[in-house]
Amino acid sequence: MEFMVNKNCLHQALSAVGHAISTKTTPSILTGIKIVANVDGLILLGSNSDIIIEKTIPVTLGGERVLEVYDKGSVVLPAKYLRDIIQKLSDDIHIKLNANHSVTIKSAEIVTDLNGFNSTEYPDLPFIDDSAFIEVHSEGLQEIIKQTVFAVSKSESRPALAGVNMTFKENLLCCVATNSHRLASSELALETKITGSFIVPSKSLNELTKLMNDEAGVVHIFVSKSYVGFKSSHISLFTRLIDGSYPNVLEMLPRDSKTTIIMDTNKLVKGVDRACLFARDCRNNNVHLDLLEGNGLQISSNSTERGKIKEIQTIKGIKGEGEVNVSLDGYFLLDALKVIKEKEVKLSFGGAMKPVLIEPVNGTSQLHLISPVRSPSA
Amino acid sequence: MEFMVNKNCLHQALSAVGHAISTKTTPSILTGIKIVANVDGLILLGSNSDIIIEKTIPVTLGGERVLEVYDKGSVVLPAKYLRDIIQKLSDDIHIKLNANHSVTIKSAEIVTDLNGFNSTEYPDLPFIDDSAFIEVHSEGLQEIIKQTVFAVSKSESRPALAGVNMTFKENLLCCVATNSHRLASSELALETKITGSFIVPSKSLNELTKLMNDEAGVVHIFVSKSYVGFKSSHISLFTRLIDGSYPNVLEMLPRDSKTTIIMDTNKLVKGVDRACLFARDCRNNNVHLDLLEGNGLQISSNSTERGKIKEIQTIKGIKGEGEVNVSLDGYFLLDALKVIKEKEVKLSFGGAMKPVLIEPVNGTSQLHLISPVRSPSA
Repeated sequence: MEFMVNKNCLHQALSAVGHAISTKTTPSILTGIKIVANVDGLILLGSNSDIIIEKTIPVTLGGERVLEVYDKGSVVLPAKYLRDIIQKLSDDIHIKLNANHSVTIKSAEIVTDLNGFNSTEYPDLPFIDDSAFIEVHSEGLQEIIKQTVFAVSKSESRPALAGVNMTFKENLLCCVATNSHRLASSELALETKITGSFIVPSKSLNELTKLMNDEAGVVHIFVSKSYVGFKSSHISLFTRLIDGSYPNVLEMLPRDSKTTIIMDTNKLVKGVDRACLFARDCRNNNVHLDLLEGNGLQISSNSTERGKIKEIQTIKGIKGEGEVNVSLDGYFLLDALKVIKEKEVKLSFGGAMKPVLIEPVNGTSQLHLISPVRSPSA
Repeated sequence: MEFMVNKNCLHQALSAVGHAISTKTTPSILTGIKIVANVDGLILLGSNSDIIIEKTIPVTLGGERVLEVYDKGSVVLPAKYLRDIIQKLSDDIHIKLNANHSVTIKSAEIVTDLNGFNSTEYPDLPFIDDSAFIEVHSEGLQEIIKQTVFAVSKSESRPALAGVNMTFKENLLCCVATNSHRLASSELALETKITGSFIVPSKSLNELTKLMNDEAGVVHIFVSKSYVGFKSSHISLFTRLIDGSYPNVLEMLPRDSKTTIIMDTNKLVKGVDRACLFARDCRNNNVHLDLLEGNGLQISSNSTERGKIKEIQTIKGIKGEGEVNVSLDGYFLLDALKVIKEKEVKLSFGGAMKPVLIEPVNGTSQLHLISPVRSPSA
């Protein structure tokens, strides 16, 4: 194996693929990045037991020659050392495989020998049939993930709830996440002949949105029995699925509400964020919402030890009963409000201790449900 | 106590004063910031057992009115909560002291009650005679600190070495720091009638340079038996001194050298930084410097397990013997080179296992001394 590659291309690829690599990984070969040099490109692979990230460096990029492969081959090199070295070099980089799975890296006057692993010992990729896939726009996919993934359960007691439930119907992708105290759901229109429901680990989805980094373009989704793969023109991510069946939470959505109010999203985010200052001292991060006479919503929290905060925000629209007072986990409320990009947000209250429904006004088809918490004074 | 203050001024002041506050501090009143409202300004005070930072907000700043004191008084408020609240407010801020040492903070529609402490229980400031002081330019002071403070000892076995030894002579401030394996020394011309030698904790000096943040202007230095104070127009920092006598390390400086070479500082920094990649696997972070025939300095390191790196840099000037091969702690070498802003650097070698002397060429009067480490192969 021998090739010459542009420094920046290689460094970017190593950073991306490095996302899949944990320093604690065993076997130790998984602390490495697998590099495969073919005539038409360089393939870089990083993996832990759950996620595999694959990145290809083509021979030319944007009309510029960024890679020249003199000799095919493959090797596994320690991810951290390789990335640190490449980062500190400045020119084109020449890499040649030696005996004993070590490589010599040359750049200008700098010569590095780096010990690696035998690439034949690197675990095989999961088999994924790439003849059938679902096509989706990258922005839409990233959005629907961000609108739901934060709501997964952090507890290990119900493994299925640690993932986002992605359901492909004929013309729809539906994502749902819940920790049984709050729920986030969002839908994206698409066309697919592949249908089915999969539980995707939240960690993998967070990595995916980081890798796609708001980039536009098309993503192909591949599914197998225990893996799902996301392929863009830049990068691929494969993740193990979570076994088990996901509860049919959408059936639990409230059908009617007693009071519905419209608020300015941005102002409400800031108000709830302030109220969280004292809420964090309460067991349930209690933030109180109280409807006042004369079109005001009071947002408040208090901590016996520290103090209290309150503010009144103008309601932009109201339907139904004029009495609302409810305590919610302020951070759950904040998480939901923060992913709503629409200017106005609708809050629907079903009565004492009934979940509060939060939706954007005239916007994306997402919804958030938060169960009230008992007030310390109640 | 009652006043109205500009949000940004208050937030900046709280951030600065907060540097002195540790969350682990006991007594708990020291987790607070003392606020004293006088007719002509607001004084904010933060402290732990070693450092005290004082910041004044005047009534007008740059011609703009930033403070209005309606009623004098003082209180101590929890630093973290106060800063978090102020950060999340946007308008002018109105603060009024209530009974039981709580305050009400109002900004637009937002009302916060924050519990505080009785300000009379806040410890007194150390007494410092402010009639006599040493005047020094802020940039010069910051520079001389940065050129030396990194070299202090991190071990607790010799407390005096954990500080920088500042010696004021009639026309000179001399700073020295050492951990007994390396030494940094720098001098600054100034005029003073106060003379003496003080050991200032490195932590306090690091805070001081952060607070002064490359700002120009004049700093007044006040000294007492156990404290030293630095006052600029913006801010004051007082720090407890380290007891004990500082070794007379400057006497140990080598008087002659066998070989002296001149190198490009920036290139050398980058080369040593690269060599540190493998050096960190060695017990002494060994980086090897070898003089090659024909005007080259080879910089290299190797780790049996990981690999090795080497590069050759051009020597810009040489005097004396043509044979040098020495192993140094790569991080010590890097620390010293990084504070040399001059384009060229002079390295003087005294022979096998003799300390290496590092000085800028045609520049500031700083010098660095590093003892060689045994090579693993030697």
